[in-house]
Amino acid sequence: MKHIISGKTKDVYELENGNYLLQFKDDVTGEDGVFDPGANTVGLTIEGAGKAGLSLTKFFFEKLKKKNIPTHYIDANIDEATMTVTPATVFGEGLEIICRFRAVGSFLRRYGKYVDEGQPLDAFVEVTLKDDERKDPPISKDALHMLGIATREEYDRLKRLTIDISQIVKEELAAKGIELYDIKLEFGRDANNQIVLIDEISGGNMRAYKDGIYMEPLELTKIMLES
Amino acid sequence: MKHIISGKTKDVYELENGNYLLQFKDDVTGEDGVFDPGANTVGLTIEGAGKAGLSLTKFFFEKLKKKNIPTHYIDANIDEATMTVTPATVFGEGLEIICRFRAVGSFLRRYGKYVDEGQPLDAFVEVTLKDDERKDPPISKDALHMLGIATREEYDRLKRLTIDISQIVKEELAAKGIELYDIKLEFGRDANNQIVLIDEISGGNMRAYKDGIYMEPLELTKIMLES
Repeated sequence: MKHIISGKTKDVYELENGNYLLQFKDDVTGEDGVFDPGANTVGLTIEGAGKAGLSLTKFFFEKLKKKNIPTHYIDANIDEATMTVTPATVFGEGLEIICRFRAVGSFLRRYGKYVDEGQPLDAFVEVTLKDDERKDPPISKDALHMLGIATREEYDRLKRLTIDISQIVKEELAAKGIELYDIKLEFGRDANNQIVLIDEISGGNMRAYKDGIYMEPLELTKIMLES
Repeated sequence: MKHIISGKTKDVYELENGNYLLQFKDDVTGEDGVFDPGANTVGLTIEGAGKAGLSLTKFFFEKLKKKNIPTHYIDANIDEATMTVTPATVFGEGLEIICRFRAVGSFLRRYGKYVDEGQPLDAFVEVTLKDDERKDPPISKDALHMLGIATREEYDRLKRLTIDISQIVKEELAAKGIELYDIKLEFGRDANNQIVLIDEISGGNMRAYKDGIYMEPLELTKIMLES
């Protein structure tokens, strides 16, 4: 098993058979010790965050598989906080595709002249570049095409998949009385150049509220997975 | 004649007949006393800047008229630095539509991970909101539609007009040995809800270079209008 890269919240290893192993860490994004799924820096370490994130990711990726939505997921080992995945290459040096149901976070910071905080949005999709130095700038379909990051057809597919996946997550949360405000997804191209969902779906990449109160990642996992 | 608003580089008056009069000022955008067409603040006052900007605007708007591109232009009085225009309402609280032929300015600051400084771009169009407080954030076709600022059809028309106008400006500059790097246009809806070019076309809203040297607005006007 070969160590490939250490990310902010995961370490990545290549397996002998060509698949990859993701080691979920207890580090979460945030600033000044406060968790923020929209942040670009590791803000704090929460004991059990890795396993909680993986548990929820396993839950959602298995749901998506049943609905024939392609992901890189093979299986997960919760005790070891590891997930096995198929190989996939990211778009450019990585994109984040965001689906928004309420105007909060960077959307509100950019478009606050035209929206009120928390205003409902209709599964609004936008794309940002993963670029810490430039603070994850938003990027248009035209620019993605021009810079050779994603074709126009890939953009349309990414948008469609993002809406479908986000609606599924939203409904699963709603069944537990939780409201999804926004979610950040990552995609890659598999060996056949097909677009697949990669990374994770957990409290670490969404904003979820219950009775108007923000749900911390561990709490979200607990409520979602309790029967 | 009724005073309507004082902008950063122009004052606007409503005329008795329903048209408007734009009074070009000698104030130009920039920071710390250095002119910058991409800046949001008045950086300095250059004697003659108003008349120079108007002279070049008159030149380009009359060219566009001959090519049947709709603008709000009626006529200009260079001595008084005033331009008479038809009424038009802006999109939302104002948009800037940028056409880029080289990667500089805010495009480079956002996408520097994928482009080199000065790299040629193929008449790339992007839209930003006029919002000083939020530093003129870029906005997508989808967001413009969702926020009720411009319909998808209007976006397509804005993009087409921007490319056509920018190509005309680029060719006029090229005929004088000047290269257009980027240009920032503004549009409005006229009384018949048709999209028309508004504001100005001058050194104040473009980056133009001659033999690799940036052309200050007054110098640009001088070279463009000398016979």
